Amino acid sequence: MAFDLLILGAASATPTSQQYTTSQLLTMREQLFLIDCCEGAQQQLRRHKVKTSRINHIFISHMHGDHYFGLIGLISSYHLQRRSKPLNIYGPESLQKVIETQLKASKTRLEYELIFHATNPNRTELIAETKKVLVYSIPLIHGIATTGFKFVEKVSDRRLNMTAITTHGVPPLERKAIQRGMDWENEDGERVANDLLTLPPDRPLSYAFWSDTAFNPSKVEDIKNVDLLYHEATFTRAERDLAEQTKHSTAEDAGKIARAAEVRTLLLGHYSSRYANPDVHLAESQNHFQNVIAGRDNMRVSVDLNTIEFVQE
Amino acid sequence: MAFDLLILGAASATPTSQQYTTSQLLTMREQLFLIDCCEGAQQQLRRHKVKTSRINHIFISHMHGDHYFGLIGLISSYHLQRRSKPLNIYGPESLQKVIETQLKASKTRLEYELIFHATNPNRTELIAETKKVLVYSIPLIHGIATTGFKFVEKVSDRRLNMTAITTHGVPPLERKAIQRGMDWENEDGERVANDLLTLPPDRPLSYAFWSDTAFNPSKVEDIKNVDLLYHEATFTRAERDLAEQTKHSTAEDAGKIARAAEVRTLLLGHYSSRYANPDVHLAESQNHFQNVIAGRDNMRVSVDLNTIEFVQE
Repeated sequence: MAFDLLILGAASATPTSQQYTTSQLLTMREQLFLIDCCEGAQQQLRRHKVKTSRINHIFISHMHGDHYFGLIGLISSYHLQRRSKPLNIYGPESLQKVIETQLKASKTRLEYELIFHATNPNRTELIAETKKVLVYSIPLIHGIATTGFKFVEKVSDRRLNMTAITTHGVPPLERKAIQRGMDWENEDGERVANDLLTLPPDRPLSYAFWSDTAFNPSKVEDIKNVDLLYHEATFTRAERDLAEQTKHSTAEDAGKIARAAEVRTLLLGHYSSRYANPDVHLAESQNHFQNVIAGRDNMRVSVDLNTIEFVQE
Repeated sequence: MAFDLLILGAASATPTSQQYTTSQLLTMREQLFLIDCCEGAQQQLRRHKVKTSRINHIFISHMHGDHYFGLIGLISSYHLQRRSKPLNIYGPESLQKVIETQLKASKTRLEYELIFHATNPNRTELIAETKKVLVYSIPLIHGIATTGFKFVEKVSDRRLNMTAITTHGVPPLERKAIQRGMDWENEDGERVANDLLTLPPDRPLSYAFWSDTAFNPSKVEDIKNVDLLYHEATFTRAERDLAEQTKHSTAEDAGKIARAAEVRTLLLGHYSSRYANPDVHLAESQNHFQNVIAGRDNMRVSVDLNTIEFVQE
């Protein structure tokens, strides 16, 4: 299997004329998950020609504006576009009141159902389960209640071993049941065990989003071995004190977490505007962990079992 | 005197990848006034290299998101940039709660004073007076409480009549007092009346903003003879029924108001996204009033006593 992450914004704090703050679109098993929703996120989604009506789940990490100020605009646009499907929003408890206060001020009664799921900033828990994906919230360390998220593919069906299927002469119509785990009985009444006809399912892939957070080693087990970890790297080593004061991470912190969690690849972002580019972040995190991508606005990261690639769109 | 209007967004309802909804920056007598603040307005301000710290007065017409969803982002950015000057916000009563709910959710205590002035949607009144400009709110007709705004230059000092000043030999240091209206006594003790030494002040210029509104002839007197009238023109004649249902105007309505108010120039905007361009709006409004500009994102309109010009930036 494979998943795809589109970074709509990788800046922190305030947007600039060309840069957006935090928002990402994850496509996993044909499902679209929006993670954080900065001001302008809906314009970024349109720019990338995303069919926004396919987004049914939006995850908000915390209530700092650079992570959610675009949410009410998207909710409102769905209403004006006469969305009818329910929309699930996962975020801090106070988000619900913020949304309701704004809908009330415009006397808007939404055309669709908005289902709000309050996240718990105190423990890791399963917060969403779709047909093919599990989503967990993970407590992070920040000035206000903040959670990261982990998206994990569900274990899929076993794969047909086509060599064995052909050898045993299994007719096409009976293959689906075998893929689901059934043994097979041939014309002579001989039973062929399922594991002779199938191969194990692909390993489920996983993506974790950790932003914003100070160095958070106590939750490393919750993101162990993920294929891709997005970890904020607001600062470089020179601003270590500032990182501690503001409960953010340096690029080194991100590298240390990636190493401890033994992830496949680390993706950085949420850079302070004081840096013209993330070259130093990349170098400093690589002192601790080798496979690092410096995330940027409009970067698409594609992950499958064998490769992790990125392009700038 | 002269004023300058920068249209940051002229679309309605939802932003597209290239277009912004309503926000305008008025520069009048060296003061910056922000009128409505759509999602992304702060990015547009940066794109146009506006020194946003110079904005001390923000006017919000009503609580539909396409007119204010960018306000909280701008308020928040000022905080992060450590603004210290007070910021005046004028808008519907419910806006204050929307702002406070969001600041509370992020546990933000602003670094500067935010002074909120609730507008009255039931009568025209003076809402702001700066050293050189008067601002009025004007009730409009829309689905929720909405006000337009009128910005009027204060009458300035009389202008020195340099021919007379030279003839009478008035020394430079005494000219300021004459400009303020004093008579002058020459070396021989002869009194020279002020109106022999000065010319009348320039006629004060004025700008009115009417959006969103249905056809609103009862308030025409409140915008009589303004130099520039921005009037929403969401629809064309073909969508007359829809305009009435949604309490918006057609371009014809805008033309009729401009004619009745005897304004100098009419500026259109807030076009529905169903139109690829405002060519039909322009033509239909010109059936009723000659001097019309079809406003667009990133258009700058410059108004002085003699000319009204616009450029696309």
